[in-house]
Amino acid sequence: PSKPIAKLRDVGRRAIKVAEEDPRRLIHSLKVGLTVTLVSLLYYLQPMYDNLGASAILAVMTVVVVFEFTVGGTIGKCLNQGLATLAAAALAIGAQHLAILTGKRSEPYLIGLFVFIQAAAMTFVRFFHNVKAKYDYGVLIFILSFILVSISGLRMNNVLNLAQARLVTTLIGASTSLAICILIRPVWAGEDLHKYDHSIITINTGHLYQCFKTSCDAGIEITKPSIINLDSILVDSKFKEETLADLAGWEPVHGQFMFRHPWKQYLRIGNLTRQCACRLEPINGYLNSEFQAPKEIECTIKEAFTESTKALKELAWAIETMTEPSSANPHIESLKIASRNLKSLLRSGDWGDQSDVLQIIPVAAA
Amino acid sequence: PSKPIAKLRDVGRRAIKVAEEDPRRLIHSLKVGLTVTLVSLLYYLQPMYDNLGASAILAVMTVVVVFEFTVGGTIGKCLNQGLATLAAAALAIGAQHLAILTGKRSEPYLIGLFVFIQAAAMTFVRFFHNVKAKYDYGVLIFILSFILVSISGLRMNNVLNLAQARLVTTLIGASTSLAICILIRPVWAGEDLHKYDHSIITINTGHLYQCFKTSCDAGIEITKPSIINLDSILVDSKFKEETLADLAGWEPVHGQFMFRHPWKQYLRIGNLTRQCACRLEPINGYLNSEFQAPKEIECTIKEAFTESTKALKELAWAIETMTEPSSANPHIESLKIASRNLKSLLRSGDWGDQSDVLQIIPVAAA
Repeated sequence: PSKPIAKLRDVGRRAIKVAEEDPRRLIHSLKVGLTVTLVSLLYYLQPMYDNLGASAILAVMTVVVVFEFTVGGTIGKCLNQGLATLAAAALAIGAQHLAILTGKRSEPYLIGLFVFIQAAAMTFVRFFHNVKAKYDYGVLIFILSFILVSISGLRMNNVLNLAQARLVTTLIGASTSLAICILIRPVWAGEDLHKYDHSIITINTGHLYQCFKTSCDAGIEITKPSIINLDSILVDSKFKEETLADLAGWEPVHGQFMFRHPWKQYLRIGNLTRQCACRLEPINGYLNSEFQAPKEIECTIKEAFTESTKALKELAWAIETMTEPSSANPHIESLKIASRNLKSLLRSGDWGDQSDVLQIIPVAAA
Repeated sequence: PSKPIAKLRDVGRRAIKVAEEDPRRLIHSLKVGLTVTLVSLLYYLQPMYDNLGASAILAVMTVVVVFEFTVGGTIGKCLNQGLATLAAAALAIGAQHLAILTGKRSEPYLIGLFVFIQAAAMTFVRFFHNVKAKYDYGVLIFILSFILVSISGLRMNNVLNLAQARLVTTLIGASTSLAICILIRPVWAGEDLHKYDHSIITINTGHLYQCFKTSCDAGIEITKPSIINLDSILVDSKFKEETLADLAGWEPVHGQFMFRHPWKQYLRIGNLTRQCACRLEPINGYLNSEFQAPKEIECTIKEAFTESTKALKELAWAIETMTEPSSANPHIESLKIASRNLKSLLRSGDWGDQSDVLQIIPVAAA
């Protein structure tokens, strides 16, 4: 096949891979297409067009910008967009009245000054850390709406109409997006975060188990490449977790998740898991070295590993089912004993992962 | 003072902190304000308004959305916006012609179908990993522009005019933003990335030195809280570095940075630095424990630490000045010897950070 065809085939293969990784992506795309087509009906229908005029197109724009993959993301953007448009429109109308009061001559200058101050101040506000995390989009919409309404006032007599049309179209676009997003196969960020944390601990457990097996066989089998893989997964995971937790904060009660579910705790669990993984690396390097431990030390290490693996498995299960991890307690007890034995044998304490497991307990129980 | 005043004062204090952390933020805000005001002149001036009509306001919108903190970000968004608008407008006009050919009756249905297919397909494309990193904004603009032009065709006779006005306003907004962004106190993402990588290695060196000092004094001084701090800095750093490298890829030649500067190498250095930091943690736990090493082992460790610190310092300096780190070579040689001595003393290889230092060399030399 010629070059363009080969390239096209490559893109097709990648598309299939993207869809297979998470089939919800395909559904999401169809949902967006459906919503856009529904809202653009506004533009076809004569009565709607008579009322809203050309700004009916703004409703379609709102859908494209607001519709996110997760329910939390969509709700967050809808709220941001709605409140920011409302606030900006009100403020811009106020500013225009003020400008008219000073006389027709100075009106453009005053409006220009307002626009400058508003744009500079709001751009600066976007650098605030807590604003950036949750309200960045809202601030952007605020700047846009303020400029749109206040500048249009220079050419139009009735800004109120414009502001009203803008609000109505935003409302229509946002509510349709929300309805479709929640009603048809919703993707909850909270659920994703929950599953993700669980899977990360499972990866860690699997890795620990591998270490243990290697130490049993006293042979050098695998591990070096897989460790780097693990490392990058865990480093990337932090960003993903934080994004999901932010999004989950917007979501209402759904399924097994109550209102004000402690999403921040997931971040703590994630951090501890990452620390634990960080400590697995030197252990691994140690196992890969030619060093041969005395029989009795090896025995204690084996015991500690077995208990760690069991305890982690119990913890992962407890997180999945959201129960208290009481079944992990006996394993942790024997882990403590094993670790104490090991310490007294080695008089060196760098087998740090046990203490990590202990740290996870209070968080998981919360 | 009453509660709202206290709150206001708190916000003011935080604003000062944000500005002090990086004074360029303040300048950036003023630049955005200036550009917005300049472009909104289009709307005041009668001849401009006569030509472009109400879509002159789109130029202002473009500025608000396109103007980013770094030059790389602004160029990237401008290119995305320009090309996406052009492509979408052309495609939408083509789709409209096709729809008209099939007859006036079926035109709205066909347009609706096109909109649905386009929106669904493009939303799916946004999930592609490489599209998401660099062209996410462009795809969004493509969806928006396509819908705008094709739907407007149902109500207007001359879509070409609309498409043209949209292109002209985008061009005006984007070029003004670019000019102001580059001419007045530009912020280069490449320079930031360069400095950032250097600072991270310096932090690491400082930390290594602290470890060394602790091991010298054989006392438990600091380290446990500072390690967690270091950890989170390094985990966060990965995301920041990747973003900066993506942005830097858009930037033209500036200062000491040539075209096609190897930005990806910075990511490799960053990854190695993070691995190195990961390995410092167990060493630290080891130093915090009550374990007392035999005199000769301690001696070799000290030597290794001193040489590592020196080598890292040389490397950081080499990155800063972009020279070959030849002055670090003798230190690395003696580091290798020390590490070999240590190995033969301990017969255990988990003092892994030395090998990391060796790994950094070829990258830094690139």
